[in-house]
Amino acid sequence: MKKIVLIRHGQSLWNLENKFTGWTDVDLSDNGLEEARKAGKILAQNGYCFDLAYTSVLKRSIRTLWLVLHEMDLMWIPVFKCWKLNERHYGALQGLNKQETIEKYGEEQVHLWRRSVDVRPPALTPDDERYEADDPKYKSLKKGEFPLTENLSDTEKRVVSYWHEKIAPAILQGQKVIISAHGNTLRALIKYLDQIPGDGIASLNIPTGTPLVYELNDNLVPIRHYYLGIEGPIPQENIPRHIIHSPK
Amino acid sequence: MKKIVLIRHGQSLWNLENKFTGWTDVDLSDNGLEEARKAGKILAQNGYCFDLAYTSVLKRSIRTLWLVLHEMDLMWIPVFKCWKLNERHYGALQGLNKQETIEKYGEEQVHLWRRSVDVRPPALTPDDERYEADDPKYKSLKKGEFPLTENLSDTEKRVVSYWHEKIAPAILQGQKVIISAHGNTLRALIKYLDQIPGDGIASLNIPTGTPLVYELNDNLVPIRHYYLGIEGPIPQENIPRHIIHSPK
Repeated sequence: MKKIVLIRHGQSLWNLENKFTGWTDVDLSDNGLEEARKAGKILAQNGYCFDLAYTSVLKRSIRTLWLVLHEMDLMWIPVFKCWKLNERHYGALQGLNKQETIEKYGEEQVHLWRRSVDVRPPALTPDDERYEADDPKYKSLKKGEFPLTENLSDTEKRVVSYWHEKIAPAILQGQKVIISAHGNTLRALIKYLDQIPGDGIASLNIPTGTPLVYELNDNLVPIRHYYLGIEGPIPQENIPRHIIHSPK
Repeated sequence: MKKIVLIRHGQSLWNLENKFTGWTDVDLSDNGLEEARKAGKILAQNGYCFDLAYTSVLKRSIRTLWLVLHEMDLMWIPVFKCWKLNERHYGALQGLNKQETIEKYGEEQVHLWRRSVDVRPPALTPDDERYEADDPKYKSLKKGEFPLTENLSDTEKRVVSYWHEKIAPAILQGQKVIISAHGNTLRALIKYLDQIPGDGIASLNIPTGTPLVYELNDNLVPIRHYYLGIEGPIPQENIPRHIIHSPK
């Protein structure tokens, strides 16, 4: 049996301001810093240890990981950062206030943009200052690979490609792995691992800064999952609802 | 012309307590954290940018690097950690107070242990609790590779091998590089790069948390070097005194 730990970054400054963030590189809030430290302490207290870590190129997930590794006395392990673990690109919604967007476009439309698997938010245009294809952190992207907007399926494609290229081979070699990423990146990965069809993932909301353990069989099929460190009953919206696969 | 930046970690808790540290994995002091942040700010203010970073597997150098990268908004760049950049192994002196060691063994002997290129401090025995060959951070070392003590030449061998394996090829490919390491690791690297013979490096004391820029020609031969952010005259002991090589 293999265990992986998924962690959504701690609260960011724009989570706090209720803004659409996407690829905007905002830092953690003080509360987010504290959530990350607490997650590290909980993992250490529960005897977790990692050989490798994966994260996006966005500072809110990197910093969350660094604080976790600091608390676990694991600062020395290799950390791999890749844009393929970045949050879903939110297109022209990036930087807009969520409440104002609801008032302008209506709740139903915004819910579709946020939660639908195949609806994309309005796209950025390449002349938009929020289109950051020239940022050196994206220099490894091929021409046309920098997204103007994404739906969850778009995000899932790149997350799953990175899973197969890098993460799954490491797990199969016996490496103990933590992935520090984003709400939609982790939803996309869970949708793939748990084979949740269609919009079945729509209601899942992964809490910030809370380790989510997935136990996998030797074929990397999920056996069970659970959060660490949530006190009291877990809100329904935080629970991945999926078919429990019987081990092959 | 290529530029690399070397930085010795900020003040550690054992720098503060005047203890021999070596491979003991002590954290930064509050002052050390502040030195690291200041170094990052100075590098950013001077327009420095990096593509890659190298550091040891000891938390005082990793954390220094992380704080530098945070201040420079470069948290996303790849960071490579290797034991070959660890501080010189101080053998059975690790954990001893420097002043008490002087009182016990005499100033001359301690100066030889600290500064001589070819004298090794007393070795650890493998049953010593300070012999940490089973620490998972050293699992990549081959049997017998974990040192019991080192002189500066021993340190130089592993630092230079890592330089040729990893760092020099990256610089030659045009990557802008920062190396966050330790007093003796950086002295060993400077001794090699500047071709300082014998004990010529003995008097060099690299200050903590202070970026040291080396400009290299296309064959990676040093042209000149300078510290960033030192106010007032630079103490003589901080200045690498070496032959200025004319570019080949």
